[in-house]
Amino acid sequence: MLGYAFMGKAHSNAFKKIPYITWPPPLVPRLVGIAGRDPEAVTDAQERYGYEYATTDWRELIADERIGLFDNSGPNSVHAEPTIAAAQAGKHVVCEKPLGRDASESYDIWKAVDATGVKHLCAFNYRFVPAVRLAREIVDAGELGEIRHFRGRYLQDWADDPSLDTWRFSPSDAGSGALGDIGTHVIDLARYLNGEIASVSGFLKTFVEGRTVDDAVQAVVEFENGSVGTIEGTRLALGRRNALQWELNGSKGSLAFDMERLNELQVFRDDGDRARGFKTVLVSEADHPWWQYWWPPGHIVGWGDTFVHELHHMLQAIATDGDVAPVGATFEDGYRASEVGDAIVRSGETGERVQISYRS
Amino acid sequence: MLGYAFMGKAHSNAFKKIPYITWPPPLVPRLVGIAGRDPEAVTDAQERYGYEYATTDWRELIADERIGLFDNSGPNSVHAEPTIAAAQAGKHVVCEKPLGRDASESYDIWKAVDATGVKHLCAFNYRFVPAVRLAREIVDAGELGEIRHFRGRYLQDWADDPSLDTWRFSPSDAGSGALGDIGTHVIDLARYLNGEIASVSGFLKTFVEGRTVDDAVQAVVEFENGSVGTIEGTRLALGRRNALQWELNGSKGSLAFDMERLNELQVFRDDGDRARGFKTVLVSEADHPWWQYWWPPGHIVGWGDTFVHELHHMLQAIATDGDVAPVGATFEDGYRASEVGDAIVRSGETGERVQISYRS
Amino acid sequence: MLGYAFMGKAHSNAFKKIPYITWPPPLVPRLVGIAGRDPEAVTDAQERYGYEYATTDWRELIADERIGLFDNSGPNSVHAEPTIAAAQAGKHVVCEKPLGRDASESYDIWKAVDATGVKHLCAFNYRFVPAVRLAREIVDAGELGEIRHFRGRYLQDWADDPSLDTWRFSPSDAGSGALGDIGTHVIDLARYLNGEIASVSGFLKTFVEGRTVDDAVQAVVEFENGSVGTIEGTRLALGRRNALQWELNGSKGSLAFDMERLNELQVFRDDGDRARGFKTVLVSEADHPWWQYWWPPGHIVGWGDTFVHELHHMLQAIATDGDVAPVGATFEDGYRASEVGDAIVRSGETGERVQISYRS
Amino acid sequence: MLGYAFMGKAHSNAFKKIPYITWPPPLVPRLVGIAGRDPEAVTDAQERYGYEYATTDWRELIADERIGLFDNSGPNSVHAEPTIAAAQAGKHVVCEKPLGRDASESYDIWKAVDATGVKHLCAFNYRFVPAVRLAREIVDAGELGEIRHFRGRYLQDWADDPSLDTWRFSPSDAGSGALGDIGTHVIDLARYLNGEIASVSGFLKTFVEGRTVDDAVQAVVEFENGSVGTIEGTRLALGRRNALQWELNGSKGSLAFDMERLNELQVFRDDGDRARGFKTVLVSEADHPWWQYWWPPGHIVGWGDTFVHELHHMLQAIATDGDVAPVGATFEDGYRASEVGDAIVRSGETGERVQISYRS
Repeated sequence: MLGYAFMGKAHSNAFKKIPYITWPPPLVPRLVGIAGRDPEAVTDAQERYGYEYATTDWRELIADERIGLFDNSGPNSVHAEPTIAAAQAGKHVVCEKPLGRDASESYDIWKAVDATGVKHLCAFNYRFVPAVRLAREIVDAGELGEIRHFRGRYLQDWADDPSLDTWRFSPSDAGSGALGDIGTHVIDLARYLNGEIASVSGFLKTFVEGRTVDDAVQAVVEFENGSVGTIEGTRLALGRRNALQWELNGSKGSLAFDMERLNELQVFRDDGDRARGFKTVLVSEADHPWWQYWWPPGHIVGWGDTFVHELHHMLQAIATDGDVAPVGATFEDGYRASEVGDAIVRSGETGERVQISYRS
Repeated sequence: MLGYAFMGKAHSNAFKKIPYITWPPPLVPRLVGIAGRDPEAVTDAQERYGYEYATTDWRELIADERIGLFDNSGPNSVHAEPTIAAAQAGKHVVCEKPLGRDASESYDIWKAVDATGVKHLCAFNYRFVPAVRLAREIVDAGELGEIRHFRGRYLQDWADDPSLDTWRFSPSDAGSGALGDIGTHVIDLARYLNGEIASVSGFLKTFVEGRTVDDAVQAVVEFENGSVGTIEGTRLALGRRNALQWELNGSKGSLAFDMERLNELQVFRDDGDRARGFKTVLVSEADHPWWQYWWPPGHIVGWGDTFVHELHHMLQAIATDGDVAPVGATFEDGYRASEVGDAIVRSGETGERVQISYRS
Repeated sequence: MLGYAFMGKAHSNAFKKIPYITWPPPLVPRLVGIAGRDPEAVTDAQERYGYEYATTDWRELIADERIGLFDNSGPNSVHAEPTIAAAQAGKHVVCEKPLGRDASESYDIWKAVDATGVKHLCAFNYRFVPAVRLAREIVDAGELGEIRHFRGRYLQDWADDPSLDTWRFSPSDAGSGALGDIGTHVIDLARYLNGEIASVSGFLKTFVEGRTVDDAVQAVVEFENGSVGTIEGTRLALGRRNALQWELNGSKGSLAFDMERLNELQVFRDDGDRARGFKTVLVSEADHPWWQYWWPPGHIVGWGDTFVHELHHMLQAIATDGDVAPVGATFEDGYRASEVGDAIVRSGETGERVQISYRS
Repeated sequence: MLGYAFMGKAHSNAFKKIPYITWPPPLVPRLVGIAGRDPEAVTDAQERYGYEYATTDWRELIADERIGLFDNSGPNSVHAEPTIAAAQAGKHVVCEKPLGRDASESYDIWKAVDATGVKHLCAFNYRFVPAVRLAREIVDAGELGEIRHFRGRYLQDWADDPSLDTWRFSPSDAGSGALGDIGTHVIDLARYLNGEIASVSGFLKTFVEGRTVDDAVQAVVEFENGSVGTIEGTRLALGRRNALQWELNGSKGSLAFDMERLNELQVFRDDGDRARGFKTVLVSEADHPWWQYWWPPGHIVGWGDTFVHELHHMLQAIATDGDVAPVGATFEDGYRASEVGDAIVRSGETGERVQISYRS
């Protein structure tokens, strides 16, 4: 594990729950080592989560032959080098999003890691919300018909304070602001649920004085399947704490979602029923692929549990030599999300719509 | 009255309710004449709503000296000539939105009418939803602080049928599709609540085979006050019947609204209360400027009642020689909404962001 | 028309809208006379609503042979005598709820009026909410299966002020407090949707100092069909303005409703769909028996419009010599609701469950 | 740990998360032994959750001196003897609800255990929902003023299948049906939020053929503080999966809650704000006593996490010799909830309102 803060905690919690919640587990994780910059903090995290040792040098983890899976939950600026090194040392890799700080860095990470043959997962954990998985299954089954619209937005409100200081506001650490932090989640879900994005027109905006990364991003998009929509992210939407909201409209039905009610999916079916409307579906039924692990229907899960699903999926892919995609995002998905993000940046700078071409 | 269909009915109903609902009424409307293309239908409407006579020639209304207010509820293609003629005959005028079929026609209507000195109101009736009026008062009082975001979308789903035939699908009758029909409502509310729009990037999209007007419009926008956002309209969002939804985020609070629950306003205040969240405000309190006319608090009004507020406002402006704006939209507002719409069209065609300049 | 206040306004508005909204109307009401206690107020109402004359003596209306329908929208204490007199003069009668101030008075009104052979309607207007009508149709079609539960409550909050003075707080004028005012609405809808009530255990409660009628009523009930549930009414539920909420649970589905969102019905069907949940149904579709009169789907109606449906139904029954029941409540329904109310009062006084027997 | 099924899993999960989520933990639980009836199942659970040994004889746990806390998550019929034995062996005890199968058994457990001086917690875990804790703090601070109403209901729908077979349908194993299973949760929250219950009128109802415990319970209640309300529980409310809903109305404000959205509290304050309505509060703010352990605001917790709060509270009480009450329910609370339940049973049998007297 590289990183001990927000994401380090979320991933560690998942590794500790998998062995008994997903029973029988595909693999039983052993928490070997944890790396981080601050000696005191990383030692505290080691003790807290039960890692066997702590280190301030991530290279120590790379050199440790007992480690078969390297989980990079650190800031964006330390995604590339350690992740590539781990893969080249033969370790499977998990890396937090955004994969790199821009499309070029993301591409390099993907290609370097992919060349080694290890499994790689870019931790777009919102694919592992039960409602999002159900949505994908509904889309895959053709139950929405031809899709015309995707509109997604990630609204938070914690960043409206000029005195806040975090690596998330540093261009060199983070690459971008709202775009990389939350906009990429919208982009990934847009791609996951509705396929590849063909073009974007948009721009970034900074409101808070003295800040050098974007506070907000917005774009109109066209998809390769012909559908159109909007993508938006902001950390200045007062009252919205963690509102990743999206809606899909097809020729036979629609779906809508809000992360603040992450156990619910809104489902509309044009099925001729006289009583016509969106269903509020509590996604906690026994036939859901992940619900077998949890509680009886209606006993909902929390945000932290998305990581249980995600890392369990990765362990299963490792144990069975199965595919990370499409349920999980690979590093290629990480790269493609970055390519879309960069296109929005360019569109904002030039004022022109950008047709996206993805490198292979 | 010109027009006897959907809008003709809505306006006639309002004129009939004003004399006893808004008591004492500023003026008591006398329903003199109604004009329409189909002789049988217009005669039926005359009888139904109690007009003194029906005619298939709107010029008869213009020539009728008893008529002091000309209400144009006809299709877009008959907005310009009759409305201008009525104003030039000294009649006050109400005209349905969009004012003209494009910015140029809208401009001409505005300028020709304004020159006559009559009162003019462009019937953006959603300004007359009690929740929208309350929102405007909250914004005007500075209770949201500096506004950062407006995002608005008007979602309907009735148009997904290639066999449908209405003037709304005819480019010459309507000018545009979703843009003029519902997109203009979003544009008008954006301007009403958040001020002038400075630039747009967007495009229109047609999905239904054989259709020659747009089914959907989407744009990212910048406002003159520095805020940013999105504007969208579609008649292909299955399950959304009349969902004109918008949200404003400011530095001190946020507001959100959905026309399908038109009596409610979502209000967030960053007031330090530990219990932090959006209030679901039932906008039916006795201190609301329009609620004095209705029922006790909690006894909600309907969509049709927005026209009561609107035409009452117009009658009051006439009776008191008061201003139509800012509570109501003038023809200048109608023109400006068209200018924004045209800018989205141009942006869609060229792929470039369009800075809007408004003619005066 | 007897009464010019809240209900007088609501009924007058309906009579004025029926001739053009419900086109062609079954009958065109002529607003002949209006009676009320206060000479100035009744004259003002006459002018406002367009009655031909005003009087402070309701007997004048009874004697007026031009009047074929007598609408009693006055306080509960003037329900019995004028209504019976009108019927005995051969006029059809509408009477506001509660029919009488207790079961005995209600019974007398029903029997005296019924003996005359005129049409009688007890104005339980919430039967005329489109969502309630749809609910009844769903129940009648057996779509809920065997019903197990009805729970209903009417929550308001306007009465928490010891200085308020209205006839609604006078035992002799009103008969009871929350029970007769709002509890009867719950009882009527319980009967309308789920059939006859067999037994009740409950009580009334007064909170506000100096008040001599009940502020709240609550009861557990058994229905003749074997289902069980709760009935409640209070005018002291802060934040609830007009929340008449009810829920039905059957062996095949459930329905739920809230008057504060009166255009919506929550519908759950146990239909094997993997996406399982309550639908939020906007009850404004073209196939609804009352929606043909209004606007396109999604353009919602208001509270006042329930009276349009109700009095239209009464006019249709008169015009066609059709039945008021079961869509509308007859005076027998009015009596039976009073019988249930009295049973709750007795249960509260004695502490014993009361088996209800209805007089015929 | 006694029990390895639903509750055994929920409690074991909590014990495993406490050491790293609630950092630093008050005590680090050591999972010594687990007992259960089925040898295979208990061995599987031992392995799954990491207990040191499994046994089919709970007496082995009592005899194990390494065990300082005995957690009884077994069926109701094995609550009394093992729990008392554990306490008499000097172990602190946790026991699932209902404490006993009736008030008499509950009383005996409480008195026997209390006499030993150990800490005892009756696992009414819904006190440990963050929104419920916030509600209690709002009530304690007097922010609701004088409370007039509590209405609570626990609606589930899993039991409508005559072929279902579980100890929950056995009178000897469970004591009662919906009453003990879910009704007691409503009773406990009623007491937790609004104080002691003075009287009840109600009854139980069985719908499913062949079943010998109640499917539904309903009662009207009076509280010692003068407020009144309703209590209901049913396992036959189709579409309601885990809907423990309650509402409190006071003279200054109201609160409402639904377990299906367990991270939200509805808060109404009568504070003179013109924008008047219930706030939807996402209870995940940094100043909440339990939120320090979790994620940033808006990243919600799940149902299972209520047990983390509950057992953490118990460990803290043990570590600091602090009080279990009032944040947690003691065995006295368990007994009192049983007393209310028995009163509803008696009221149902006799048809009379029952004044409750609690034994000390």
